[in-house]
Amino acid sequence: MKDLEKEQTNILNEIRSEAVQLPQQKRRDFLLNGIKLAFGTTFAASAGRVMAADESLPPNVPAWTRSLGRGVVSEPYGMPAKYEQDVVRRTVSWLTASPISSISMTPLHEMKGIITPSGLVFERYHGGVPDVHPDKHRLMIHGMVKRPLIFTMDELMNFPSESVIHFLECPANGGMEWRGTQMEALQFTHGMLSCCEWTGVKLSTLLEEVGFNKKAKWILAEGADGAAMTRSIPMEKALDDSLIVYAQNGEMLRPEQGYPLRLFNPGWEGNTSIKWLRRLEIGDKPWYQREETSKYTDLMPDGRARKFTFIQEANSVITSPCPERPMLRKGIHELQGLSWSGRGKIKRVDVSLDGGVSWRTAKLKGLVLSKALTRFSMELNWQGEPLLLQSRAIDETGYVQPTLAQLRDSRGSNSIYHKNSIHTWKLDKDGTVSNVQLA
Amino acid sequence: MKDLEKEQTNILNEIRSEAVQLPQQKRRDFLLNGIKLAFGTTFAASAGRVMAADESLPPNVPAWTRSLGRGVVSEPYGMPAKYEQDVVRRTVSWLTASPISSISMTPLHEMKGIITPSGLVFERYHGGVPDVHPDKHRLMIHGMVKRPLIFTMDELMNFPSESVIHFLECPANGGMEWRGTQMEALQFTHGMLSCCEWTGVKLSTLLEEVGFNKKAKWILAEGADGAAMTRSIPMEKALDDSLIVYAQNGEMLRPEQGYPLRLFNPGWEGNTSIKWLRRLEIGDKPWYQREETSKYTDLMPDGRARKFTFIQEANSVITSPCPERPMLRKGIHELQGLSWSGRGKIKRVDVSLDGGVSWRTAKLKGLVLSKALTRFSMELNWQGEPLLLQSRAIDETGYVQPTLAQLRDSRGSNSIYHKNSIHTWKLDKDGTVSNVQLA
Repeated sequence: MKDLEKEQTNILNEIRSEAVQLPQQKRRDFLLNGIKLAFGTTFAASAGRVMAADESLPPNVPAWTRSLGRGVVSEPYGMPAKYEQDVVRRTVSWLTASPISSISMTPLHEMKGIITPSGLVFERYHGGVPDVHPDKHRLMIHGMVKRPLIFTMDELMNFPSESVIHFLECPANGGMEWRGTQMEALQFTHGMLSCCEWTGVKLSTLLEEVGFNKKAKWILAEGADGAAMTRSIPMEKALDDSLIVYAQNGEMLRPEQGYPLRLFNPGWEGNTSIKWLRRLEIGDKPWYQREETSKYTDLMPDGRARKFTFIQEANSVITSPCPERPMLRKGIHELQGLSWSGRGKIKRVDVSLDGGVSWRTAKLKGLVLSKALTRFSMELNWQGEPLLLQSRAIDETGYVQPTLAQLRDSRGSNSIYHKNSIHTWKLDKDGTVSNVQLA
Repeated sequence: MKDLEKEQTNILNEIRSEAVQLPQQKRRDFLLNGIKLAFGTTFAASAGRVMAADESLPPNVPAWTRSLGRGVVSEPYGMPAKYEQDVVRRTVSWLTASPISSISMTPLHEMKGIITPSGLVFERYHGGVPDVHPDKHRLMIHGMVKRPLIFTMDELMNFPSESVIHFLECPANGGMEWRGTQMEALQFTHGMLSCCEWTGVKLSTLLEEVGFNKKAKWILAEGADGAAMTRSIPMEKALDDSLIVYAQNGEMLRPEQGYPLRLFNPGWEGNTSIKWLRRLEIGDKPWYQREETSKYTDLMPDGRARKFTFIQEANSVITSPCPERPMLRKGIHELQGLSWSGRGKIKRVDVSLDGGVSWRTAKLKGLVLSKALTRFSMELNWQGEPLLLQSRAIDETGYVQPTLAQLRDSRGSNSIYHKNSIHTWKLDKDGTVSNVQLA
């Protein structure tokens, strides 16, 4: 009891001393020690420190309360706090030959809710980010149409607009795991995934405007980047929910997301949502461009390739804990994760603590929107036992996220695309989390 | 016909010449000229330029397609395109004595959808933005409780979280208009208004944790800024939907929004959502602090003041056209606006073109969420006639946004707070839009 009091006093002093720096490791020690002070509370065993009977109120007045802060004029466009400077997109240096055709990934372990801030949306370029002048940018629509038209940005933005919240995912997300490469971070296993509010004009509206030939079946979309990134899109999708997008999370598109104009195909692999969109050609068959033959096809065990595999099927991953978010203490935690489906809404997510032997249904949190990230959670009372954590998403069509064995049975392991199998995190006794592959 | 062909050729040359700069005025002339090329189309009379019969495809290959762009490593946290550098929060220099206790406003005329990007969320400080270290920040909850507790950020973030999309508005929004000052920009008439996804722990969860006395009726919330901004909050709200928020639009709060922790009272005047939150005291009556007596009360004609007027009642404003977004051409336009209510969902928005004599029901666009911005639109076929544009929001409780005359009849014009009356834009023959006050 004496020791407990002494420890309380020490911690209190630590809080009061504003000079004390708490680097990451020390902070964790502090939190782990905090368990010893805990008593029975309703949720988190170590939540909060009981105030001492003689403690003055408030317990300390920090330096920042004893002075004035910065005013409003200094920063017309705001940035994150300096303490969050490690919350950034990250690249894997050995993954691509050049940063011009490369990838950076969203720090999913740091994300809250379902919106990804635009500064952290993952990047994928085939020829770098072009510096497109919006006043000089044009969108041409031609081919099997009555009236080939060239649009300015102003003209496009005068059409009725739609705003929708949808995820965006690269089909190579998780691709390094197909053959067993185990990336030791959620940011690298699943970080080619983001979710934003997108605003634009429905592609079907523009197709009406040019008077498309009803016999047309495909649309070629071409980007204005140095790669002239090009994909063939079925007319059926274009008339369903494809958007010609100019805004993202309330403001104009970011350069890396296609400023000033991109195609957006909800629920489909990201590369079909051509960025810096300059041309749509209407035709009656696909064009078989490089990025839909050599790339973005799924090589099967027999040497043939699945092509035009557009849909990002139901998927999910636990985001807390994860390698970057180890368990810092025993007790009750909120296990959290993200789920999504290119076919519509998430209907249910199950969580397993024993590598898929038994499952419990998780809670879906907040907004459950079609083709959007959907957050799930489950109360986890962890007492230091090793666990094999998995999540399994089921979408409104009834599609169930497969196991890795099921995926390999049907598609082998030659491909790097469309790996949506159940992911396993191994939680060790000491609270660390690592990436393991369970069949 | 000859002239038309010549004009087409000229415009084509203009597009092809990448050296041509199109400054704002020239761009507008270009668009207005575009009308002469128009033919009957389904929506926008001037949408798109018809391609010439001998026009090569594609019509030009811009410089940015003939070179590689920047790679992925240069910008771990992304920023808007350089061409969007005028899309910023703005201050009114004469409005406050010092930038330390001042306001900056969201460029609502540039916003799309309902999410405000965090860099453009309006600012309101009473003592500037403190530089709060998250590892040293604490939240104390004490007063009429069984267990006074002090929480670290880690402890707070271990509780079950909630993510919600809600607007945030200063009750002084539009306040300069009460007595007739007419700000000639939407950004200044309504720009103390933003909407984000907020993530945090329910205040009710923390109140259970400390074991609050069931006789308690009020909570004092205190900020860690130099103003020690302080407000009294009724327990009823705290147990309903108040959140202790640490994240905004998917990432940690921005410094100007209370990093690392704030109170958030959905639908209530912004100043009650205490930023840099350090202390919650539980009591049985309000504290009558400066910012709820001298300020943030509504002075009535008889000299008495309405106090604790928390709710931001139903409001709306047309955002396109507006002074910053004049009509650039005759023809069919999508009139757009924003509506919101602190009491719940928007049920209906009406639009008048004749200063309130006749009304048409607008379309609600996209997500209609409780206590969130809700976008509305209406097709407007404008042929150059002067119009008096108004919008009128009705929320799910049946509350109807009042006229300015109705508001003045009941509250006079001494106050600068809670002006939610119907706003009028005057559209002139030349397409310019100005702010007028109609009774």
